[in-house]
Amino acid sequence: MTKFDRRSFLKSSALVAIPTFGAGSALASVYLSVKEKPEPERKVVLIGDGPRYSPSEMLEELQKINAITPILNDSYGKGGTVQALEEKFAELTGKEKAIFIPTGTLANQLAIAALSGKKAKVIVQDLSHINRDEADANLEFNTKLVPLALEKTYFTAEELQRKIQNLPSEEYFYSGIGAISIENPVRRANGEFIPIEELVKIKQVCDAESIKMHLDGARLYFASAWSGVPIKDYCSLFDTVYISLYKYLGANGGAILCGEKSLIEDMPRQIKVHGGNIYQNWVNSALALYHIESIEQKLKEVKKRSDELLNELDHIEGVSVEFKKNSTNVYLVQLPTAINTKKMSQQLDKEFNIMIIPASETNRLMIMMNETILNQSSNLILNAFKTCLSNPENFG
Amino acid sequence: MTKFDRRSFLKSSALVAIPTFGAGSALASVYLSVKEKPEPERKVVLIGDGPRYSPSEMLEELQKINAITPILNDSYGKGGTVQALEEKFAELTGKEKAIFIPTGTLANQLAIAALSGKKAKVIVQDLSHINRDEADANLEFNTKLVPLALEKTYFTAEELQRKIQNLPSEEYFYSGIGAISIENPVRRANGEFIPIEELVKIKQVCDAESIKMHLDGARLYFASAWSGVPIKDYCSLFDTVYISLYKYLGANGGAILCGEKSLIEDMPRQIKVHGGNIYQNWVNSALALYHIESIEQKLKEVKKRSDELLNELDHIEGVSVEFKKNSTNVYLVQLPTAINTKKMSQQLDKEFNIMIIPASETNRLMIMMNETILNQSSNLILNAFKTCLSNPENFG
Amino acid sequence: MTKFDRRSFLKSSALVAIPTFGAGSALASVYLSVKEKPEPERKVVLIGDGPRYSPSEMLEELQKINAITPILNDSYGKGGTVQALEEKFAELTGKEKAIFIPTGTLANQLAIAALSGKKAKVIVQDLSHINRDEADANLEFNTKLVPLALEKTYFTAEELQRKIQNLPSEEYFYSGIGAISIENPVRRANGEFIPIEELVKIKQVCDAESIKMHLDGARLYFASAWSGVPIKDYCSLFDTVYISLYKYLGANGGAILCGEKSLIEDMPRQIKVHGGNIYQNWVNSALALYHIESIEQKLKEVKKRSDELLNELDHIEGVSVEFKKNSTNVYLVQLPTAINTKKMSQQLDKEFNIMIIPASETNRLMIMMNETILNQSSNLILNAFKTCLSNPENFG
Amino acid sequence: MTKFDRRSFLKSSALVAIPTFGAGSALASVYLSVKEKPEPERKVVLIGDGPRYSPSEMLEELQKINAITPILNDSYGKGGTVQALEEKFAELTGKEKAIFIPTGTLANQLAIAALSGKKAKVIVQDLSHINRDEADANLEFNTKLVPLALEKTYFTAEELQRKIQNLPSEEYFYSGIGAISIENPVRRANGEFIPIEELVKIKQVCDAESIKMHLDGARLYFASAWSGVPIKDYCSLFDTVYISLYKYLGANGGAILCGEKSLIEDMPRQIKVHGGNIYQNWVNSALALYHIESIEQKLKEVKKRSDELLNELDHIEGVSVEFKKNSTNVYLVQLPTAINTKKMSQQLDKEFNIMIIPASETNRLMIMMNETILNQSSNLILNAFKTCLSNPENFG
Repeated sequence: MTKFDRRSFLKSSALVAIPTFGAGSALASVYLSVKEKPEPERKVVLIGDGPRYSPSEMLEELQKINAITPILNDSYGKGGTVQALEEKFAELTGKEKAIFIPTGTLANQLAIAALSGKKAKVIVQDLSHINRDEADANLEFNTKLVPLALEKTYFTAEELQRKIQNLPSEEYFYSGIGAISIENPVRRANGEFIPIEELVKIKQVCDAESIKMHLDGARLYFASAWSGVPIKDYCSLFDTVYISLYKYLGANGGAILCGEKSLIEDMPRQIKVHGGNIYQNWVNSALALYHIESIEQKLKEVKKRSDELLNELDHIEGVSVEFKKNSTNVYLVQLPTAINTKKMSQQLDKEFNIMIIPASETNRLMIMMNETILNQSSNLILNAFKTCLSNPENFG
Repeated sequence: MTKFDRRSFLKSSALVAIPTFGAGSALASVYLSVKEKPEPERKVVLIGDGPRYSPSEMLEELQKINAITPILNDSYGKGGTVQALEEKFAELTGKEKAIFIPTGTLANQLAIAALSGKKAKVIVQDLSHINRDEADANLEFNTKLVPLALEKTYFTAEELQRKIQNLPSEEYFYSGIGAISIENPVRRANGEFIPIEELVKIKQVCDAESIKMHLDGARLYFASAWSGVPIKDYCSLFDTVYISLYKYLGANGGAILCGEKSLIEDMPRQIKVHGGNIYQNWVNSALALYHIESIEQKLKEVKKRSDELLNELDHIEGVSVEFKKNSTNVYLVQLPTAINTKKMSQQLDKEFNIMIIPASETNRLMIMMNETILNQSSNLILNAFKTCLSNPENFG
Repeated sequence: MTKFDRRSFLKSSALVAIPTFGAGSALASVYLSVKEKPEPERKVVLIGDGPRYSPSEMLEELQKINAITPILNDSYGKGGTVQALEEKFAELTGKEKAIFIPTGTLANQLAIAALSGKKAKVIVQDLSHINRDEADANLEFNTKLVPLALEKTYFTAEELQRKIQNLPSEEYFYSGIGAISIENPVRRANGEFIPIEELVKIKQVCDAESIKMHLDGARLYFASAWSGVPIKDYCSLFDTVYISLYKYLGANGGAILCGEKSLIEDMPRQIKVHGGNIYQNWVNSALALYHIESIEQKLKEVKKRSDELLNELDHIEGVSVEFKKNSTNVYLVQLPTAINTKKMSQQLDKEFNIMIIPASETNRLMIMMNETILNQSSNLILNAFKTCLSNPENFG
Repeated sequence: MTKFDRRSFLKSSALVAIPTFGAGSALASVYLSVKEKPEPERKVVLIGDGPRYSPSEMLEELQKINAITPILNDSYGKGGTVQALEEKFAELTGKEKAIFIPTGTLANQLAIAALSGKKAKVIVQDLSHINRDEADANLEFNTKLVPLALEKTYFTAEELQRKIQNLPSEEYFYSGIGAISIENPVRRANGEFIPIEELVKIKQVCDAESIKMHLDGARLYFASAWSGVPIKDYCSLFDTVYISLYKYLGANGGAILCGEKSLIEDMPRQIKVHGGNIYQNWVNSALALYHIESIEQKLKEVKKRSDELLNELDHIEGVSVEFKKNSTNVYLVQLPTAINTKKMSQQLDKEFNIMIIPASETNRLMIMMNETILNQSSNLILNAFKTCLSNPENFG
């Protein structure tokens, strides 16, 4: 990082909580050279999937982006920076075409409605966003959700096959399953991802049964960073893929839907008739287009630092990290029962610039890893935890 | 501009809001130091209902706004600057409650669906946005549009009454009309507004028939500025009112829907199930909230300057302005048939910083008045037209 | 009846089908022994498109039919007499497949929804049943009706072509027209039919534009009998054809929809999800299957007798029949203004067993021809009218 | 039964499988006086919920009914015998109003859609007809089914309460439950009924939560006959009640929906827009109106005879009847594993005029009790079973 004057860069900008990367600068070096004392702006927020910006921060971010590559207007979603974003995502996912859609709910619903065609049924995970977090929006889009994997992360290919076989005998006037939708990773399952081997088997079942597949990949980059499976490998298994623009890509909202040309080309009309055709969409597009460039490398580093940090935490007396085979960025950490996590979280915030949500009554702490972990070294964070966990004032 | 006391106008208003387009140019100076020679940044764009900003301009605008009153985050449309905007509009329209909705199409469709209840039919103007510009979105919201006033600006109370009476004999199994929607002013009728006297009569008919009324007031402030009828007077006649945030209020998109508390409080769920619930909405809210402060006074001045300019233009030999009783900001101007309006428009742009859309084959020029007309004095604009209209090079 | 060779007519036809209304009266005798005095059971009802049966009459009819060819059960519309009816109609219309549907409204709506596919717009005649008599049912089936030919019988190919060309400029976000539906003959246009030449031209337009065509042929056999165009010729122009089973085919309700195999084979599911899948359907199927055998020949004879009768009526002093080029079985007859048509209709009923609906205030009488006109000779009916029209008691 | 000449009655009619009751004749006496040898027409069909008629039988039945009380036409469901049926059911269920609807699916769907209003969610039993046998028709009626009691007969009030409490935490953007629907008895649970005490508790929960209740009482008279709970007691717990007209009331199809006046009065329009408005409906109305008179008494006797027969069967060596606490007319009977139930059923049919469906591979026989059991004495039926179960030819 010799050529990059970090200090003046930080001074001249209000980068605050926003991790920034000069074009071409290696990720690791940016962060490893930090000093062992946290500065006010180097906040670590172990809440959420990415940094949360204030309007001021975001405006500065946008101006910085605009200075690098001028942001361009669109006309009701056509042309300009929106189009650049769409082309970028088509390339990243390996799909023919991509389209900006104002919400993930709209992207999910339009995708499964388009894929299922005349067949009403769409198989989903019980815990999936479509089934639990879209307020029965599917009713407005004329699909019937069939939840599998009750309270679990995913259904297996075998469970899917069994359901497909059984449906005709379970119901009268069975009309076939039009599509399945898989959320990966699964937010309501503490961010767990689905093994790629199982997804491959599921695809085989769907191919044999002529069932289309949609991927709710709102947080797909977390799955990829933690599992090591490339984004394109995931996407190649699905007919349509939705990726969120605001979970970890820095936008204020918005979604990208990728798929076959003919399917995507029918979307503008669908977006319009559902009331989602917005005049200008460059704010979210520019933010996401900027962040997508570095997100893979950044999350790899987040994963590495998480592992370091959690292993060390797990060695602290009275602390036990729940390591799960398929976890992504969400971790449950059992703290000593005697500690007062509210007090502890206050100290972490005030003295170390680290934010956590105080644990539940049983002192089971949920930590969400995201790129703000790169704002301080692992040592610094670990020491902060150690200090707070051994502070007598935080007990009782 | 002798009769117009600019100084007191600027003092009494919040005209700082007038977009200036040029990087760094202070607003006040634009107006206080009006020279008789246009500067690059003092563009007059007689196209559209308001200035169109580049991303750079808008980002500056947003930072300026943020510096005056810090913009605040919302959480999926709740709280922060969005809430401030909603409260402002509830006050301005005299309604119990207002809600931000990402598009005018969604605002219109949700309003008429909510007002009409179990009754499917909604009477609309043939030329209205709902009937012509929403791609049959009403099918997704289960209402049946019954267009009246074919190819005209509005239907009269009498025509409405007749339709209400005739429908049962025209159709089998008549189930009542749930609502009427009135666009005012009417974009496809060259922006003409509807006389308030007729709206009052229409309300009497609707009251007698227990029919609810929705106002598509996307451009209501133009109707108000040209007719002299206060915004609240219009709104008092309707159960719900939609006003656009981006036609002349500077936002990138978005709409406000105002109405009774119980109706508006059901909207978040409706917005969600139609896929319109966006994570952050402060960009559009902040822009509109800022511009709404000065828009009434600004448009009054636009109207005054339009009148001056058009009267003078009408006196030029070979030029004839179509003055219509109910026009707002859209004017048709017949130019001499011998002039080449493409050449003329190029000269206007290059030499005088005035943009128009070249006229149709019959040299009928459409001019749209908006706040950019305030960027140059009426004299300057008039002289520019005179120069270009008498330039022999612009003929043939 | 001298010019009409009844014997050969009866031999060559399956006229046993003519309903006789009287308990126990043999059909043959009704026609072979026509006396010049009406018997109670030989009622002529110039109201409606066919005889209306009392439950007693219909039960006798059904037992007569069952005695000739045993009626067979179906299982929720599958097999038995329903299937026989469907096969018969597929053959008569020249279509691959036909399906029984409980109502004409359901048949029309399912057909246009299936034909239009993803494109919402369906062009219909303003006066058509779909547009005026189905209570906006199209909203439940997600199609948007675009009415042409306001208050007229039909739109021409040219008018259709113009509408197709203009729609994109009339509306924003135009998404194409999926289908057109043509009612022929048109009940609300006093039963007028559409010239086959125009239908051929309309088909050329639709073929060129890849627009599918549905025929609402509820009363298609009247169009055929009056125009001389064979049923199959009409049907060959359309993708789907609906024919009513109860207007003149003697059933208690029901419809037949004919079309391509793949389209019809999707209908059972559609019928089910719209709540139209009835356990047993042999009553209506048996009645219609029986009557369809003789209906063509019967209506030809009705047409011939109508012509005779109306020509003679037209020669009566003060009586003027409105002959229209494209009329089918509905006629308007201007009676002398001095006559009291209520009294006249009472005499016709009591003395001559002829029923009419008393004329409007202007003494414009609507007569609907149907097979009951065959129950008395033309002479007898003519004399009845002459007697009642010259009866001084019927004046004033 | 001295005054009633059974033999000539049977001769003069084609009553065949149709159990008949002279007006006022006591039910028991009709059947107890039969001789101990079955006559061909005295078939016992232990399949289905009621006798299945051939078209010939049904036509005779209709003529018999018409001879007793003349059947009257309706006009698209208004007036005549349909109205009489509706009034009868309003009285029997204790509801303000009742309406004839062509299918149970339509009745169920319209009821839950009307009851749930703006709230999309409707709680149903997993095994219920609405959830399993209506081909996702709810999508056409905009309700979301939430199945409880997976693979069980019913959910308890406690389970319902828990689900109501948990839904807001299980899902984002919870919008309330509009209605619950309860099928009773439950066909897919082998006809088991729900204890009235539980229904009372469920009503308390629903009342406290302002949730409306629909009863899918397709086979409600079986629940009543077996549980001893009067029809009106069941109905008093629900806002709407649907009862089938063809399971055991002799019609060819059709349903009755009962409820509050205002709700039922909106149904004609709903029936029309879903394509269910049929021209004549007297066939099904007359059949059901006739059978409803005697059904309660008849099913009480069926229950009594079932008990006798099953107790005796249970005493036969190697035979074991599964008695369930809440069963209605469906019984599972374990036969000796060595018997060939196909051969046995053939003997029962040929020699004793008793029809069963041969048992599954494990010789578990399903017997459905219905009024045809009254066609032979219990002794006769028992002896038939004994004979066939001891016939060496039926083994192996």
